[in-house]
Amino acid sequence: MAETPIRFGILGCAEIARKVSRAITLSANASVYAIGSRSIEKARSYAESNGFPPSTKIYGSYEAVLDDPDVDAVYIPLPTSLHLRWAVLAAEKKKHLLIEKPVALNVSELDTILEACESNGVQFMDGTMWMHHPRTREMEEFLSDARRFGQLKVIQTCFTFAADAKFLQNDIRVKPDLDGLGALGDAGWYCIRATLWAADYQLPKTVTALHGAVTNEAGVVLACGANLVWQDGKVGTFNCSFLSNMTMDITAIGTKGTLQVHDFVIPYRENIASFLTNSEAGFTELVRGWSPLPSEHEVMTHLPQEVCMVKEFSGLVGSIKQGSSKPEKMWPSISRKTQLVLDAVKESIVKGFVPVEVLSCSS
Amino acid sequence: MAETPIRFGILGCAEIARKVSRAITLSANASVYAIGSRSIEKARSYAESNGFPPSTKIYGSYEAVLDDPDVDAVYIPLPTSLHLRWAVLAAEKKKHLLIEKPVALNVSELDTILEACESNGVQFMDGTMWMHHPRTREMEEFLSDARRFGQLKVIQTCFTFAADAKFLQNDIRVKPDLDGLGALGDAGWYCIRATLWAADYQLPKTVTALHGAVTNEAGVVLACGANLVWQDGKVGTFNCSFLSNMTMDITAIGTKGTLQVHDFVIPYRENIASFLTNSEAGFTELVRGWSPLPSEHEVMTHLPQEVCMVKEFSGLVGSIKQGSSKPEKMWPSISRKTQLVLDAVKESIVKGFVPVEVLSCSS
Repeated sequence: MAETPIRFGILGCAEIARKVSRAITLSANASVYAIGSRSIEKARSYAESNGFPPSTKIYGSYEAVLDDPDVDAVYIPLPTSLHLRWAVLAAEKKKHLLIEKPVALNVSELDTILEACESNGVQFMDGTMWMHHPRTREMEEFLSDARRFGQLKVIQTCFTFAADAKFLQNDIRVKPDLDGLGALGDAGWYCIRATLWAADYQLPKTVTALHGAVTNEAGVVLACGANLVWQDGKVGTFNCSFLSNMTMDITAIGTKGTLQVHDFVIPYRENIASFLTNSEAGFTELVRGWSPLPSEHEVMTHLPQEVCMVKEFSGLVGSIKQGSSKPEKMWPSISRKTQLVLDAVKESIVKGFVPVEVLSCSS
Repeated sequence: MAETPIRFGILGCAEIARKVSRAITLSANASVYAIGSRSIEKARSYAESNGFPPSTKIYGSYEAVLDDPDVDAVYIPLPTSLHLRWAVLAAEKKKHLLIEKPVALNVSELDTILEACESNGVQFMDGTMWMHHPRTREMEEFLSDARRFGQLKVIQTCFTFAADAKFLQNDIRVKPDLDGLGALGDAGWYCIRATLWAADYQLPKTVTALHGAVTNEAGVVLACGANLVWQDGKVGTFNCSFLSNMTMDITAIGTKGTLQVHDFVIPYRENIASFLTNSEAGFTELVRGWSPLPSEHEVMTHLPQEVCMVKEFSGLVGSIKQGSSKPEKMWPSISRKTQLVLDAVKESIVKGFVPVEVLSCSS
């Protein structure tokens, strides 16, 4: 870990940046150093109302943040349509990148970003917070246990929430020129990531969007789903939506075990999170009940998951700054796989719910 | 309720009949009266080892059970390919029918059975036990509550279990000439029923099988899934399998609420069962957790669900016997809708995972 905390510059005044800036402040190896907005007044007011340190540099443009030589890393919560421009520029200015999901409008844009990161030696990580919760590590231990879980065969996930009328009219996530991937890019991103995570990041062979996708008048997806099939026969399905009550489930079924979690994106509570497992489940005599019963596992964390994320990212950045390591490739790799599947779902919807082959070529 | 318990004849010595005959014995308005098998020795030994009353009539054929004028109702746990013949004959002999699922090989066969029941004035009910658990009533109250649940938008269900090598070689459910519908007819039946149940028995408009279905060498489905779409835009997906650890989940998401249950087919415990609900779920400040948290509902039952089923069926039969009512049409109606969707999934698999329109015509 670097001795000096990693100095973050924040691009824009997004709602989500309130949570992440708090996480930066709570992370011992990171600090909020600068914020830039197209309006310097807005940046100042945002910094004040969110308790940024008085020393925080306030800039009236994103460029100014990138031009500050003391900024080590930027957090980019801008609308997805702006990611290509600002992420590439940030990388060229040697700023490490913590970037909100969906990371790009498509994998071609993402590849341009990732190439910029690689050629400039900066770390890339997307803002999928739940990946960093200690519960995720414990669930991985279960999923990778040949005796308790076996091989993944079926995975169902969902992430839905009921957006209000104002969101459905005005949020960037329903605007084709801002976050044009809509519910697929927002909620669907998490379902796809969870599915790939459970599949140990193997890419599916084909992706077929589920019939019944809903789009708004501008063509932005408000609800959709997909069916994923892997070479080895495992299958996944997910549903994401802005139009249904908030729900975020994973049911991952292996040859020998089952993992169930109801709050995978944001745990019900900040400092404790649980999941259910069962292995070699069968019935008691005369099918009167189950044996064994599932086990509930509770995982405590003294750091919220977004703080764990910032800490992990800043640790990697610190090591790179000290010259003791290169950027960790796992993070851009799983972002890219998520985007590849997301692109395939989009293509399948556009083409009328036909199967789309997922190719991992290029980059 | 009839003053004399309904006298059941059991056709065959199926494993599941051990559980249902116990339920008949435990139901105050029903009694095990006769059993018939193609081998009288087998019938006798089965009756003895399963604690049937010493007075039980033991017959060496199914016909003999149907010819006994004192048998009020028959329980038919025979392989599905035999349902058409024996169910129709039973109805013609004026025996009321409690019949295992899948009720027929296809809706055309089922319609012949249902016509025989109707023209002979006998009650028809399939053996989907969980429909009769008091938990199901409580879950229905939640699903039909406009304030707590709203309109159903998304439903995911699964029922999987890991069959052993012996099952996959020899069980009637992997034999095309016995239970040729395989995992779709067995485990999938429950998923389809649960989906229709949550949709208040509205039929979907189209059904599309999910890519990745698995069949054995004889062409019997060992694992499959489907995507259902209703006219009003709600969507459902399910996965069923003989090849994965036992799991039986429903996640039903409405505009305002969510219902989650992990043991819908067979509750974990015989006398208590639970489910989770949440309504208008949102986040606390800075998305640090959920508000409200989900509620767990526990439902006690002094009668196991299969006893509730026998009691319900026998009550209907008793009323018909007394001349005070006609057969209840809800039960054959929901069996038929389940079979219609099941047929559509089968057709979609056979046709290469194309959307199949569900028509409720005929019968």
